[in-house]
Amino acid sequence: MNLPAPIRWEDGRLWLLDQRRLPDQVTFEEQHDASQIARAIRNLHVRGAPAIGVAAAYGMAMAWRDRVDLQDAARELREARPTAVNLAWAVDRMLAAATRQEDLIDEARCIHEEDRAMCEAIGRHGAKLIKPGSSLLTHCNAGALAVSHLGTATAPMYVAHEAGVRFHVYVDETRPVLQGSRLTSWELSQAGIDHTLICDSVAAHLMADGAVDLVIVGADRVTANGDTVNKIGTRALAIVAHYHDVPFYVACPSSTFDPTTAAGSDVAIEERPAAEVTDGIPAVTGVKVRNPAFDVTPAELVTAYVTERGVTGDIGDGLRRKSGCEP
Amino acid sequence: MNLPAPIRWEDGRLWLLDQRRLPDQVTFEEQHDASQIARAIRNLHVRGAPAIGVAAAYGMAMAWRDRVDLQDAARELREARPTAVNLAWAVDRMLAAATRQEDLIDEARCIHEEDRAMCEAIGRHGAKLIKPGSSLLTHCNAGALAVSHLGTATAPMYVAHEAGVRFHVYVDETRPVLQGSRLTSWELSQAGIDHTLICDSVAAHLMADGAVDLVIVGADRVTANGDTVNKIGTRALAIVAHYHDVPFYVACPSSTFDPTTAAGSDVAIEERPAAEVTDGIPAVTGVKVRNPAFDVTPAELVTAYVTERGVTGDIGDGLRRKSGCEP
Repeated sequence: MNLPAPIRWEDGRLWLLDQRRLPDQVTFEEQHDASQIARAIRNLHVRGAPAIGVAAAYGMAMAWRDRVDLQDAARELREARPTAVNLAWAVDRMLAAATRQEDLIDEARCIHEEDRAMCEAIGRHGAKLIKPGSSLLTHCNAGALAVSHLGTATAPMYVAHEAGVRFHVYVDETRPVLQGSRLTSWELSQAGIDHTLICDSVAAHLMADGAVDLVIVGADRVTANGDTVNKIGTRALAIVAHYHDVPFYVACPSSTFDPTTAAGSDVAIEERPAAEVTDGIPAVTGVKVRNPAFDVTPAELVTAYVTERGVTGDIGDGLRRKSGCEP
Repeated sequence: MNLPAPIRWEDGRLWLLDQRRLPDQVTFEEQHDASQIARAIRNLHVRGAPAIGVAAAYGMAMAWRDRVDLQDAARELREARPTAVNLAWAVDRMLAAATRQEDLIDEARCIHEEDRAMCEAIGRHGAKLIKPGSSLLTHCNAGALAVSHLGTATAPMYVAHEAGVRFHVYVDETRPVLQGSRLTSWELSQAGIDHTLICDSVAAHLMADGAVDLVIVGADRVTANGDTVNKIGTRALAIVAHYHDVPFYVACPSSTFDPTTAAGSDVAIEERPAAEVTDGIPAVTGVKVRNPAFDVTPAELVTAYVTERGVTGDIGDGLRRKSGCEP
């Protein structure tokens, strides 16, 4: 299985896959220092909250190796995308390791390795949901490109595929930024997984025909009550799945659970530029646009959460990311 | 109010608005004979079932005027888009008028006028649903461009707007062919109606925020049990509206009701080319695509039908299009 790794650390050198050029060009760019990595994060060469965290950790490691002021590097990296929780988390963890006088290259590799292990565990647990001959549907890209190694929503697919299970995936194109057609479809092609691209509005029609056995998506944040903040369109998909009695799974590491926020209604939803919607399509000049980047899926519509701990409908068991590399 | 008329008959000459060029160019092309009109229908210069019927009627009228074989003209026009019900209906009605030795120019103008009157009646009845300050949501283009004069789903908006009612419309862009951003948004702009363009997956998020008071869409066919065949994405929209307790209206002439088909599941759904989805977006070369053009909205999700007869949840009253121009 040929999975795209968005971040490669080889012989003391860091390479990032430039995701803006996918699927037409697969280009790896060597990153020489923390400033360059901050730019790559800011300009969306690397995207997906966990992948950004891993890239930032390597940025801090390079700053440490090059004897650059770590506070300056930390500030520059944090500011690259201020809303990405994993970014600040990774930078803080690297600073803490520095105060303990640890080797920051080792710490970055440890964060990277934890991410990989988390993907594998999600994949192992989630793969049990994929029966031979079944048909899945996913939205946006919660894949290898967004995380590392196996992704989150895609991890069960990759593990099942490696185990020889044959299944099919419907991929929502995911307007307006088209992460589905641009990234998820490309990932699945690379892995040799049978899939079909659809417009976001098609899922209900397929479900009416009995063509979808389960939906699996990622998450940007899961609040204390189980509400799930994810890419715009996830809420509609969950409502439509519920109407057709199609199980709806959210795959994410336990670090995505946010016990400090009570409910989805407490989360501010980022509004993105109109040009994301109107560029490249025929539209009236200057037309007003609403372009929320995320929406909230009510907990009642989530069949279960797939985390590194297992598949559970219960999020009250204090899911927290374990820290530290295990042998 | 500056409404686009897709079909103009002036001083014995027929002009069609070339809808493929909207919204960038507003171009009217004179049509000189039935063959040219058949080409214009085939190549989507004119679209929307009622508008196609009216254009075909004028095509038959020109064939009659030019002493062309009416059976040849009828065949050529019918074959331009074989699945459009109104096309065959209009051609047959013109042939019947010819056997009665009537003036076919008058008959075409009568069909055109009936269409106009039907739009006005739908608009008059539907306008009562639009309260001052309310927010509507529509999908695809069931507007003046698809019919003539006021459209179907848009007719209540135009009538309310003319009456001085202030309201707002969310316009689904309607992937993959983008009739929403390309046609409906343009129509509303021309009429000076306040509106906002959104991606198709955004409706659920807006409804969760209480930002949508009602949904109004057109229909390609309503079966005997009230199931509604309409543009792909309508089913998802109806399910999402139901979940949020937002009223969902279907606006169409009674001629759209098909008592000979029992339920939506009896209607074959046209599958369109993959290129409609993948052209112009970043996608994996050769990726499999499902591109159904329509879907079925179950009758249970339709709050009421808005026809030229009124607003009714009951479709069992033998709604049938009246024939013949009334003074």
